[in-house]
Amino acid sequence: MSGKGHLTIIGLGPGDPAMQTPQATAALEAATDLIGYGPYLARVPVRAGVMHHATGNRVELDRARHALDLAAAGKRVAVVSSGDAGVFAMASAVFEAIDHGDPALRSLDVIVIPGISALLAVAARVGAPLGHDFCVISLSDHLKPWGVVEQRLTAAAGAGFVLALYNPSSRARPWQMGRCFELLRAVLPGTTPVIFATAISRANESIALATLADADPARADMRTLVLIGSAATRVIERPGAMSWVYTPRRIDAA
Amino acid sequence: MSGKGHLTIIGLGPGDPAMQTPQATAALEAATDLIGYGPYLARVPVRAGVMHHATGNRVELDRARHALDLAAAGKRVAVVSSGDAGVFAMASAVFEAIDHGDPALRSLDVIVIPGISALLAVAARVGAPLGHDFCVISLSDHLKPWGVVEQRLTAAAGAGFVLALYNPSSRARPWQMGRCFELLRAVLPGTTPVIFATAISRANESIALATLADADPARADMRTLVLIGSAATRVIERPGAMSWVYTPRRIDAA
Repeated sequence: MSGKGHLTIIGLGPGDPAMQTPQATAALEAATDLIGYGPYLARVPVRAGVMHHATGNRVELDRARHALDLAAAGKRVAVVSSGDAGVFAMASAVFEAIDHGDPALRSLDVIVIPGISALLAVAARVGAPLGHDFCVISLSDHLKPWGVVEQRLTAAAGAGFVLALYNPSSRARPWQMGRCFELLRAVLPGTTPVIFATAISRANESIALATLADADPARADMRTLVLIGSAATRVIERPGAMSWVYTPRRIDAA
Repeated sequence: MSGKGHLTIIGLGPGDPAMQTPQATAALEAATDLIGYGPYLARVPVRAGVMHHATGNRVELDRARHALDLAAAGKRVAVVSSGDAGVFAMASAVFEAIDHGDPALRSLDVIVIPGISALLAVAARVGAPLGHDFCVISLSDHLKPWGVVEQRLTAAAGAGFVLALYNPSSRARPWQMGRCFELLRAVLPGTTPVIFATAISRANESIALATLADADPARADMRTLVLIGSAATRVIERPGAMSWVYTPRRIDAA
């Protein structure tokens, strides 16, 4: 190992270049090698002399090891994620690969550059649904048992948290979103607001507001973030425009 | 009301201008009137012809009403928050003021511009502690009963969420952080990593890593974000450098 290697893990934000921080842009420009899931890498302009290493989805650990190998060989490597790299994205995979890899990897410079997460972008788009305590949960049972997901959903909703759900649905996981709504209907009022936000800030963005009683699981796909209010979350209806959703800052003593 | 009023609620990010999005910068430049808590407003360059309305802390609702009055009078108003405006900041107060105000306010253009939250900035600074499910809780009992805080801390830690705690301590709330650690020691291993991050990304940034068993409540003040791992969160020790903290993506079936 040359000891001069450098690895940056970059959150690009949700898609709109105006939401990508100057810090992320500068880090992309300093890299000799870019690594990421193909569709995310495609958002970075190609520059002469910079290698793009596009990979498939669901190979996070292989991708992390590849990035570390390149950095250990002296390259300036940037791993790119959509949103924020630390929220259900590549940062955890890179540190996992370091933790279980050659101890020499611990001497590398590894910098994580935060990005606007889908969570924050969707919340801003609809008002202020995260105005009070909230939980962020991946509905995927690819890396954890479904029982853990159910336990966390029930605990969080029961304690009055607003819920933000990543990875709600995919072809390989078609029933989880529906089961989640079933569980939550036992804990929360049917009037609780549910927001489905897909491809937020991109040209094909779509946003739908429903209630927990009538929320259609088929509305979610793998690009959708689902926000579910608490019993305190409110909807402000507007003439001829999308309603605003917010969660008040105050909880009065019972 | 003129109907032409425009209100933007802007997250400036944690302090480093390189973390402020181009979208936020453009929105600041389009405003005729800027409103916010003094220290946050001081981060925005003064321009000729732009009014700065600085206010004290803890007057969020008054500040929100003032912003709405100006917008209703036809101004282009920007309300500025540190971090993300939707996370324990001004966005919820503005929508609350609309919800309980003149119905004509619902016709205003109100745009929320997301920012890099302290949550994401701190996580990135130390590794990937938010790599799995997490909860975000305000420890302040200024707007909610302390009993609700305790119930949420216990539910979230018991269900295996990583915890991010805003507003952990202030002169008016000196004992809450210590009580929080006491509660969590009954639920989580003493080795659970605790991160205290104050003034993240600013010149006076300070970061300390402790364990739940030895975490000192006095380390937190009102500018501190406290991250508390789950039982799965790991620390990677490094020779001569700050340790990295990450939460693995995978939970194996018991």
